[in-house]
Amino acid sequence: MTSKIIGVGNYIPPETITNLFFDKHNFINKSGESLKESNAIIASKLKEITGIEERRYASNDQVTSDLGLIAAQAAIDDAGIDPETLDYIIFAHNFGDVRFGTIQSDTVPSLASRVKHLLKIKNNFCVAYDVLFGCPGWIEGVIQANAFIKAGIAKRCLVIGAETLSRVVDIHDRDSMIYADGAGASILEISDDDSGIQSHVSASFTLNEKDYLYFGKSYKNDCCPDTKYIKMEGRKIYEFALSNVPDAMKKCLNDSGYEIDQLNKIIIHQANEKMDEAIVKRFYQLYDRPMPEHIMPMVICKLGNSSVATIPSLLTMILNDELALHEINKGDIVMFASVGAGMNVNAFVYKF
Amino acid sequence: MTSKIIGVGNYIPPETITNLFFDKHNFINKSGESLKESNAIIASKLKEITGIEERRYASNDQVTSDLGLIAAQAAIDDAGIDPETLDYIIFAHNFGDVRFGTIQSDTVPSLASRVKHLLKIKNNFCVAYDVLFGCPGWIEGVIQANAFIKAGIAKRCLVIGAETLSRVVDIHDRDSMIYADGAGASILEISDDDSGIQSHVSASFTLNEKDYLYFGKSYKNDCCPDTKYIKMEGRKIYEFALSNVPDAMKKCLNDSGYEIDQLNKIIIHQANEKMDEAIVKRFYQLYDRPMPEHIMPMVICKLGNSSVATIPSLLTMILNDELALHEINKGDIVMFASVGAGMNVNAFVYKF
Repeated sequence: MTSKIIGVGNYIPPETITNLFFDKHNFINKSGESLKESNAIIASKLKEITGIEERRYASNDQVTSDLGLIAAQAAIDDAGIDPETLDYIIFAHNFGDVRFGTIQSDTVPSLASRVKHLLKIKNNFCVAYDVLFGCPGWIEGVIQANAFIKAGIAKRCLVIGAETLSRVVDIHDRDSMIYADGAGASILEISDDDSGIQSHVSASFTLNEKDYLYFGKSYKNDCCPDTKYIKMEGRKIYEFALSNVPDAMKKCLNDSGYEIDQLNKIIIHQANEKMDEAIVKRFYQLYDRPMPEHIMPMVICKLGNSSVATIPSLLTMILNDELALHEINKGDIVMFASVGAGMNVNAFVYKF
Repeated sequence: MTSKIIGVGNYIPPETITNLFFDKHNFINKSGESLKESNAIIASKLKEITGIEERRYASNDQVTSDLGLIAAQAAIDDAGIDPETLDYIIFAHNFGDVRFGTIQSDTVPSLASRVKHLLKIKNNFCVAYDVLFGCPGWIEGVIQANAFIKAGIAKRCLVIGAETLSRVVDIHDRDSMIYADGAGASILEISDDDSGIQSHVSASFTLNEKDYLYFGKSYKNDCCPDTKYIKMEGRKIYEFALSNVPDAMKKCLNDSGYEIDQLNKIIIHQANEKMDEAIVKRFYQLYDRPMPEHIMPMVICKLGNSSVATIPSLLTMILNDELALHEINKGDIVMFASVGAGMNVNAFVYKF
């Protein structure tokens, strides 16, 4: 007995933010010195490394739970289920609802409660909670839903990942060009056939890695000393991910019983195109294989890094036939993997 | 196979806040009008209803995760386990780390990651995440740990509940006198004997109840329009709790297979003494029984409402023989129950 995905949905905000948006920003480094290069060159270098040339922002009147609602409703419609039959609504995020132009996170009530309210679900035994696990939060929500199903306390769970990173960026930090807004959702259901989740792995690296992604001050020292923004140690994250994600993926694949050559697709957190490629290449190296063509769909160039939303959002795009060169067919074996704040790493192998 | 508690710990901040602390506060109502009664009378009425005459606040240099760490370390010491053997660290809170004098919630990395870091745990497969579920968050964390143990993905879990509500209070709202800071923690372990969790129930009431507890503006209209504080609809919560908590407890007890007369103790979220008494009375009425004497330990008079921390903190006090008239012995059947933001209600029946 396992859990299978019976519906998916996403919300990709229509507002496209090109690099021109950042053209007049005064980018400075951690030491408070202005960057010497022009913003056009900074953006071009960023694109070279991360692949990001555009990103999406939520509209000013939306908050994270609004995005999550749209993705959730789409997943419910896709599954064709009555939302009253949901046993759990699990909402993965990291910053709560942050209204445009403000700095406070609003998490009371939980974002899962807000979505359940907006879905007008009457069933009180549909349990709504939020999980915070960095960018890997949506995968962790899926792993938790799977555990509830295996433990016999749930049959059908809605797992949402949504974030508005645009609300927590330091405009003086060039990394602000990486972050994006979005939402994705899936419905997991108890499965009696051999499809569904085959194996999973989760890990939290906190000894030395706790602050590779953190909430910190603006690089502009004289600006709002009490206001914090999302910050990252890009180089350290890159090296960390390369050292640890391929091993976690290998453990997960080995636990699944499938062979490396049986993998049809790898859906990985869209954080940095070069990093993701290096991770997947190293993963195949662990099996003495070259990285196959078209194994890893990438949408980061147009969508940026929307944290917990990237994987369920990308999965939805593939299943809805929105990506050339990428499709998933019945029987396909797909690896899902993520890395992010915590630092957390997780993965699951799934048979469609 | 079930899960049993093998260690408990708490952190009760030493700083006692008496009602004198609020003596010069300008309390106003939701409409912005000053309350007519003196603060001494307001405090006295509050005590009459809620039982609260004192509360504890964290020191200015502490944040929620610091409180959680102390309780976690105490639970580890109490259990006598090597923290490297933990499979999960589950941290229940609602507002993250809010530094004294600031208004932002810091949740990146998760508070569970922070505690794991401070515990110096090297085992990367100890998964650290945060759960947001209102005041019932600690009970929900226990239910999730139990599910992981039943699903075969964990054998030993640390579940922490910690909060610093003093950092999110509106000083113009008399309800600010209710809120407190604190932390509690327990270690759950797979159990092969008949002790441990016997049954559990969770529910989220979101249709009409979503905003009974919410993050809202100060009652003083001209003060910081963008800053939000913890707010509640006290009367609605009281009626909601009385209508729904006894039923949830009854369902949980019936699911456990134990009879009402076999219950030795009820450990309920310390939110309001009169409300808790009314809940437990009505619970016994459902079985045509009077409420037994000394069935429900109350520490709210001295500790206030510290959200997710109240139940694990109180459990620790009882097991450490710190409460006169209250003890738990081997074989005792204890009901744990909570209600809070979401609005969420949950309970579990436990055999010691």
